[in-house]
Amino acid sequence: MLAETLAALRPADPDALAAARAHQDRLTKPRGSLGALEEVAVRLAGAAGVSPPPMPAPAALAIFAADHGVHARGVSPWPQEVTVQMVGNFLAGGAVANAFAAQAGVSVTVVDVGVAADLPAHPRLINRKIAYGTADLSRGPAMTPSQAVQALEAGIGVARDLVASGARCLITGDMGIANTTSSAALIAAFTGRDPAEVTGLGTGISPETHALKIETVRDSLRINDIHPADGAAQPREESGLQAPAPHRGSGESPDGGFREEAVRVLAGVGGFEHAAIAGFILGGAAARVPVILDGVIAGAAALAAAALAPAVVDHCVAGHRSAEPGHAAALEHLGLRPLVDLELRLGEGTGGLLAHPIVCAAVRVMHEVATFDSAGVTEKPM
Amino acid sequence: MLAETLAALRPADPDALAAARAHQDRLTKPRGSLGALEEVAVRLAGAAGVSPPPMPAPAALAIFAADHGVHARGVSPWPQEVTVQMVGNFLAGGAVANAFAAQAGVSVTVVDVGVAADLPAHPRLINRKIAYGTADLSRGPAMTPSQAVQALEAGIGVARDLVASGARCLITGDMGIANTTSSAALIAAFTGRDPAEVTGLGTGISPETHALKIETVRDSLRINDIHPADGAAQPREESGLQAPAPHRGSGESPDGGFREEAVRVLAGVGGFEHAAIAGFILGGAAARVPVILDGVIAGAAALAAAALAPAVVDHCVAGHRSAEPGHAAALEHLGLRPLVDLELRLGEGTGGLLAHPIVCAAVRVMHEVATFDSAGVTEKPM
Repeated sequence: MLAETLAALRPADPDALAAARAHQDRLTKPRGSLGALEEVAVRLAGAAGVSPPPMPAPAALAIFAADHGVHARGVSPWPQEVTVQMVGNFLAGGAVANAFAAQAGVSVTVVDVGVAADLPAHPRLINRKIAYGTADLSRGPAMTPSQAVQALEAGIGVARDLVASGARCLITGDMGIANTTSSAALIAAFTGRDPAEVTGLGTGISPETHALKIETVRDSLRINDIHPADGAAQPREESGLQAPAPHRGSGESPDGGFREEAVRVLAGVGGFEHAAIAGFILGGAAARVPVILDGVIAGAAALAAAALAPAVVDHCVAGHRSAEPGHAAALEHLGLRPLVDLELRLGEGTGGLLAHPIVCAAVRVMHEVATFDSAGVTEKPM
Repeated sequence: MLAETLAALRPADPDALAAARAHQDRLTKPRGSLGALEEVAVRLAGAAGVSPPPMPAPAALAIFAADHGVHARGVSPWPQEVTVQMVGNFLAGGAVANAFAAQAGVSVTVVDVGVAADLPAHPRLINRKIAYGTADLSRGPAMTPSQAVQALEAGIGVARDLVASGARCLITGDMGIANTTSSAALIAAFTGRDPAEVTGLGTGISPETHALKIETVRDSLRINDIHPADGAAQPREESGLQAPAPHRGSGESPDGGFREEAVRVLAGVGGFEHAAIAGFILGGAAARVPVILDGVIAGAAALAAAALAPAVVDHCVAGHRSAEPGHAAALEHLGLRPLVDLELRLGEGTGGLLAHPIVCAAVRVMHEVATFDSAGVTEKPM
């Protein structure tokens, strides 16, 4: 399923990109006056392979929930059972993600990919549990490579099912106490940044816990034999993502090396929700349905997805920039500009949900706004 | 009508502000994790005088259209008839503002306060024409003080009517070729900034036209005897807007001086749409309905409104920050943080419309999100 998804992925269509840019310039507005929104609409045209691109609605949020062995190191002040409790809160409709989803008219699905407890069945809860939480990434691999592939495929499956049910836009969400630690490790691994640069305060920690968290990220990279400086992933160029240089692994195809290495990094320091979100992004992109990324967890997952298939980035929109420093590093590496920048640091998909109406507005312009010719509006002399 | 509106205005209610802050801290999310959105919800509670504040929906956009005598100076590359043509485009539903309004579920009303042509009647067009465009502000006052009051009252009337029809949030919009020149003059006058700092490229002009535009703004201040350095308006303090120091005028009440001076400045270098939008903001605030400000034209108008009644700012939300440099100066002076920052420079209300779903999301959280107690979620130890 993973191989099939990676094979199905296509980069942005240059003809659709050009057609969308030309269309923008004929609309009754000064050229470029919609700022970053013009590029969003053009981007979605490239991803869909048609201009104007389809409206990205209805949209579906999937919140992937999992626990983390590294919680035992004391990297978060929140007890681990909050993961289970918040899953209950999502299902009862009482979380911020529910309020934002209701505002945006977006459906909410919760996916258990590794919560450290058995969860009661619920119509909006999908059980894809791989284990009762990952192993402690600072003492060895968080998961086996086969678990990582299982989580990737869980995410692909959820994306496929939501698209089959009519979703025309996917939004990533996450829940997992301690998952910013794993995110920081993934971001350090895939961007080559120092752990101190990309490890933040999560949902609110003391300076002592912050120092411990950075140390834990360093330990996780060392013990998992991950050497960001080797160039595990190259920065994205303007013209498209570079394929990461394969510096390890023994794949048989030309791609096999870096793909195997990406899975090894993901298994080493990722969380089940990171792997599942990476799969969710790949699954949406393979179906040519745009994916709005939430915050730092999605950013880390998108780096893993891009290491597996660089073209996936052409199908992503960065919903927002979170207050976590690693998120800005991830977005920069991916070459994505966030739409919302309001210092959110909650996760759950909240930043992606706030961006959804903005993405819709950008695309709607392409469908509904008159051209200078059709409206009889005089164009500015060139 | 203006005096009555100013008398009805109340500043933010401190009890509602405190109640809203306390409520935010009980919700199932890490404290402060909704970043700037928490302050938006608190702000609306203060403005409404109740926590949680009412949902700011349905919302109504009013696009105030007018022409500008200063157009004759050559400050815009667009022909003046584009104002009329775009009014037709709004009424036909073909402009970007229509697409964004449809996306956000916001009604669109167009108000002619001074278009330089007779417009055919239309169910969504309100005729409050004061004149066929202002006089050239660089050669004398753009309007008479009585015209300025008439335009202010036109805006108040539109706000009152929309609120009476059920609007629970007002969004400002504008159309008027050359209106960024007038905006720059108002912003220079009310903030004390130099014209070169606050005069931008509008919808796209050459460096030569930009230089001419700055010179025109300087001329307008000189010929209208407006001396920003005298302190026509004081910067807002954290705790609330300072009443501008009256340095001219002969009002009988203690407030009369600075109010008369504010009207004199508005008449001297404003546009009919600036004055009407200032009235619209005052009218919404007096009815305790929040007003989402669009871009630089609204920012200039809000400065005039705040000079008339400092408490009005407590009822405003800055929808976005436009690419115009004067807009940032206006927002800073008003003490407002913009919600959307995507380099839009279109006007029409487009930035305010993009912000509306974000404002709704912020308020919805206060109504729908569970508390730690009610959801049985363990709170982080302090």
